[in-house]
Amino acid sequence: MDNENLPSIIAGKPIRCRAAICRAPGEPLVIEEITVDPPKSHEVRVRIICTSLCYSDVTFWKMKDFPAVFPRILGHEAIGIVESVGENVIEVAEGDIVIPHFLADCMECADCKSKKSNLCSMFPFKVSPWMPRYQTSRFKDLKGETIHHFLSVSSFTEYTVVDIAHVVKVDPAVPPNRACLLSCGVSTGVGAAWRTANVEAGTTVAIFGLGSIGLAVAEGARICGATRIIGVDVNPEKFEIGKMFGVTDFVHSKNCGGKSVSQVIIEMTDGGADYCFECVGLASLVHEAYASCRKGWGKTIVLGVDKPGSQLRFSSFEVLHHGKVLMGSLFGGLKAKSDIPILLKRYMDKELELDKFVTHEMRFEDINKAFDLLKEGKCLRCVIWMDK
Amino acid sequence: MDNENLPSIIAGKPIRCRAAICRAPGEPLVIEEITVDPPKSHEVRVRIICTSLCYSDVTFWKMKDFPAVFPRILGHEAIGIVESVGENVIEVAEGDIVIPHFLADCMECADCKSKKSNLCSMFPFKVSPWMPRYQTSRFKDLKGETIHHFLSVSSFTEYTVVDIAHVVKVDPAVPPNRACLLSCGVSTGVGAAWRTANVEAGTTVAIFGLGSIGLAVAEGARICGATRIIGVDVNPEKFEIGKMFGVTDFVHSKNCGGKSVSQVIIEMTDGGADYCFECVGLASLVHEAYASCRKGWGKTIVLGVDKPGSQLRFSSFEVLHHGKVLMGSLFGGLKAKSDIPILLKRYMDKELELDKFVTHEMRFEDINKAFDLLKEGKCLRCVIWMDK
Repeated sequence: MDNENLPSIIAGKPIRCRAAICRAPGEPLVIEEITVDPPKSHEVRVRIICTSLCYSDVTFWKMKDFPAVFPRILGHEAIGIVESVGENVIEVAEGDIVIPHFLADCMECADCKSKKSNLCSMFPFKVSPWMPRYQTSRFKDLKGETIHHFLSVSSFTEYTVVDIAHVVKVDPAVPPNRACLLSCGVSTGVGAAWRTANVEAGTTVAIFGLGSIGLAVAEGARICGATRIIGVDVNPEKFEIGKMFGVTDFVHSKNCGGKSVSQVIIEMTDGGADYCFECVGLASLVHEAYASCRKGWGKTIVLGVDKPGSQLRFSSFEVLHHGKVLMGSLFGGLKAKSDIPILLKRYMDKELELDKFVTHEMRFEDINKAFDLLKEGKCLRCVIWMDK
Repeated sequence: MDNENLPSIIAGKPIRCRAAICRAPGEPLVIEEITVDPPKSHEVRVRIICTSLCYSDVTFWKMKDFPAVFPRILGHEAIGIVESVGENVIEVAEGDIVIPHFLADCMECADCKSKKSNLCSMFPFKVSPWMPRYQTSRFKDLKGETIHHFLSVSSFTEYTVVDIAHVVKVDPAVPPNRACLLSCGVSTGVGAAWRTANVEAGTTVAIFGLGSIGLAVAEGARICGATRIIGVDVNPEKFEIGKMFGVTDFVHSKNCGGKSVSQVIIEMTDGGADYCFECVGLASLVHEAYASCRKGWGKTIVLGVDKPGSQLRFSSFEVLHHGKVLMGSLFGGLKAKSDIPILLKRYMDKELELDKFVTHEMRFEDINKAFDLLKEGKCLRCVIWMDK
């Protein structure tokens, strides 16, 4: 990352660069030349250093109907260097290292000013194909066709444009292939344990689904001092991976000896786990998580994204009589601009594990291999370098 | 209340006294002579001073099937004087003024020792017809037929027997016709705002259903410093009553001008109430309460008792994306033995309103009139004096 290579001469003008474009659902991304318009007021143009693949990219790559749109530049976990800034941007300047993030933090609305919310009301979360402030795109292909944005980030390109509400400036000393993970998945899991659930030391945690988000919950729970971390998965191979992130016990959900997962967890914990995290996105699993948590004080935290229209059902009696709490959170309840730097510092201080999440690294040209690995469950995080 | 009148001479022997017996669902209670056995180990025999009628008494009076049983002595809001104690009772002694309460507080189990739970695991809440420790009755009619208990209290009798886990000793200076209210309904509402939701000063609260529980939530919210308390009810007459308990705004749920209640509340509050309390017991209303609370930090607290088997449904998307919290609590999350004395002190210090809940007082002989008043919605709390 040397600033001298930055094409500052082109600030204010469109940049021509390479991007991996998703032109049709489920088809391999196509690396093409595109033009990236200069940033408008309150926007930043960022040269992506590296980006990692999150399962939401795969979900929207496969999705056929709205809110899926094509052609689109996917990607929303990344780190980059500010190439140029639009008017009214004072928070970052050319050459700053920044992490773009999908959940806005405008720092001005009632939510962003409150310590209790991370759901910016100026730019509410939606899977929009446009820049959040203007409802337009900064991307075109060489035929002049508009290319759509994704989650206000679109990082599968050498250059992208991001609203200032969606970037956080970070310490340039942080290794980019670790820092990029905090854009979405790892932050979501760690934040869910730390900010949403506020896991207390000495407690028991059950995690439903040991993908990257679930493992990040385990990492967050470990940092918070949880003494028992129970991983639940259909795949027993996940337990070995889980151990690396502090998972202490494993429940193989397909092999509970005729019992339900909640029965097994209630027996293991003499009453239920203090916190249950659903990281898969299945209504039935949310119900099982709720049943697995301790009467009197148990909290169930919903992190998994279920298919549109799905409903969670709870017995009215159970809700009233069991004194449990049900919570959901986006991005683990984190406020991006204040919390991402805290997590990065904890990584630099060797308190937060990030290294083990990066199971693969590859060149931009090989981005479709990263999709294959993630689809096949063969990787946690694959970091894609733009300039190698 | 003079101890000299206590028939201590009969300690250890059955007492013959009057009780209002529910012999068949929905039929007037019959005042009969019964015998009340002496307390077994860990039990206390209590002479009831006065008792108030709660809607749960009416519900179980009307109910035809299990867990309704007959004949039964209903009543679970009361205050009394300890007539005698069984073995192993050291917490109270003959002559002490006590409040019996339906939710056990054994002080020994993991839940009772924890600050986080009020759900005793030694004597879990159930609508049992028996004494909780022995699964037997202390009541017989003069023909020798067993009379069943109710909610471990059964206060519609001159004498009852209560497990030591279900009584709290209170300051004898407290007026009994106020203190008895803290056995159930008023504590439930005040506790829900204070302990379960932990309402913060300066916040907005919406209360669905302005019966006694809802009004007690308003009272709790007022004490916690809520600045706006919105009452929602089908009956606009409830607003005038609500004003006496700190309700500042009213939503007539049958007359929202084509909008849903949640739309009205979201508009009134510029985004939703900080806390929503469902005090009726309707799944549809829980959903409306959840929709009415503020994205980012809103809490919905379920207090109403719905019919058995009813289910609460939430959109998976809404739970994940709106950052809201759903909670339920019995007895407002209060731990009876530590929290009832705190509430009583706040009443004596003129901080907690109890007087206005008592709309009617009558003699034991007129107990069926109290049922009529409550059924017809004409009273909040009717206090029934046993010896007047």
